[in-house]
Amino acid sequence: MWTLHQFPLCPFSRKVRILLGEKSIAYDLVQRRPWDEGDDLWRLNDAGRVPVLEDKARNIALCDSRAICEYLEETVERSPMLAGSALARAETRRLVALFEENFHADVVAPLLHEKMTKRLVLRQPPDGRVLREAMKRAHGHLDYIDWLVDNRSWLAGSTMSLADLAAAAQVSVADYLGGIDWRGHDQARGWYAVFKSRPSFRPLLAEKMEGIHPPSHYAMVDG
Amino acid sequence: MWTLHQFPLCPFSRKVRILLGEKSIAYDLVQRRPWDEGDDLWRLNDAGRVPVLEDKARNIALCDSRAICEYLEETVERSPMLAGSALARAETRRLVALFEENFHADVVAPLLHEKMTKRLVLRQPPDGRVLREAMKRAHGHLDYIDWLVDNRSWLAGSTMSLADLAAAAQVSVADYLGGIDWRGHDQARGWYAVFKSRPSFRPLLAEKMEGIHPPSHYAMVDG
Repeated sequence: MWTLHQFPLCPFSRKVRILLGEKSIAYDLVQRRPWDEGDDLWRLNDAGRVPVLEDKARNIALCDSRAICEYLEETVERSPMLAGSALARAETRRLVALFEENFHADVVAPLLHEKMTKRLVLRQPPDGRVLREAMKRAHGHLDYIDWLVDNRSWLAGSTMSLADLAAAAQVSVADYLGGIDWRGHDQARGWYAVFKSRPSFRPLLAEKMEGIHPPSHYAMVDG
Repeated sequence: MWTLHQFPLCPFSRKVRILLGEKSIAYDLVQRRPWDEGDDLWRLNDAGRVPVLEDKARNIALCDSRAICEYLEETVERSPMLAGSALARAETRRLVALFEENFHADVVAPLLHEKMTKRLVLRQPPDGRVLREAMKRAHGHLDYIDWLVDNRSWLAGSTMSLADLAAAAQVSVADYLGGIDWRGHDQARGWYAVFKSRPSFRPLLAEKMEGIHPPSHYAMVDG
């Protein structure tokens, strides 16, 4: 039985959870606090990060969300999320990197710092200027999702892939933290609404991070 | 024919070049300057980064160094660098992420900012405090390489893999920028010396970045 070490607002852990759900793989959750010195996450992962997907009985601890997803793709045939030709797979991986590096750095990381780290760790108020800049940058990325959805059934092509899972995971954390203004992004909103209604995604939307409250539209399927 | 868009001190481009060399794949180089507004890299890569591996005749532009390496692994059998069981591959990918995220953020990114970006773009002197902190952090990562090499033939196991290529590429840029103090790291130095002597790596060591000079030991095989 797998155990996923994570915390509710980690977008990389969310991606792994959606993939586990889509593949109908059972798992337990352990909540970690990588920002606490008392958390011994370093014993499981030399990078000091979540997610870690552990199977104690087999003495396995998989680290790094992309390595975890590739492992699950290679070992579980059900609901492939990295399908097609080598070129199609390269396109999926390109988009995963785009959302997990650019969208994350521009939008999710500053929102998490201002609204989560400052509240839970630094005990400081968020900086409104940083929040506004993150929201402004989110629009550029949502424009890109709009464009992809105008041209393809799913972000990377004709079928749902890790690109959709990675993007939806990042977007969902930004949305939880109030960083997404959906106005003018009907295509992106439509794509995300489909995700919100999936059984693999519903449990994530129902979870809360202690002391941090999402906006009212966050968990609504048509929100 | 492939064309690799890169600049000499990009560690992610270096990894791709080593892989292309190990697989004996011919390619041309184009030097880009992603930090210049005049560089139209965005037309090739929506993430605005190098490396991009382009085949104009086939209208292909592969973006993101990990996606590029996975593509080359999937399409060129020679010199596999992502071999073994799903678990072995997960270990290789974990280490690639560790060096390209943690080592990069702790050591390579601050060195590049202080010694390259400040010189070529900002026209400012480097901050000695930041350089010393980066060098201090490098020791922790070199300790980890020492430990891996004590326990395995190569970083991820019994054969050379993308983990070695990714780590050597990051280390080589840090070494070029004077950020590596090899004293006390005989195992890591031995591992890296093997890389320096490989035909896939020699061309990289012979290249210079305009206006930035490496220390004298940088290109020496026993340096």
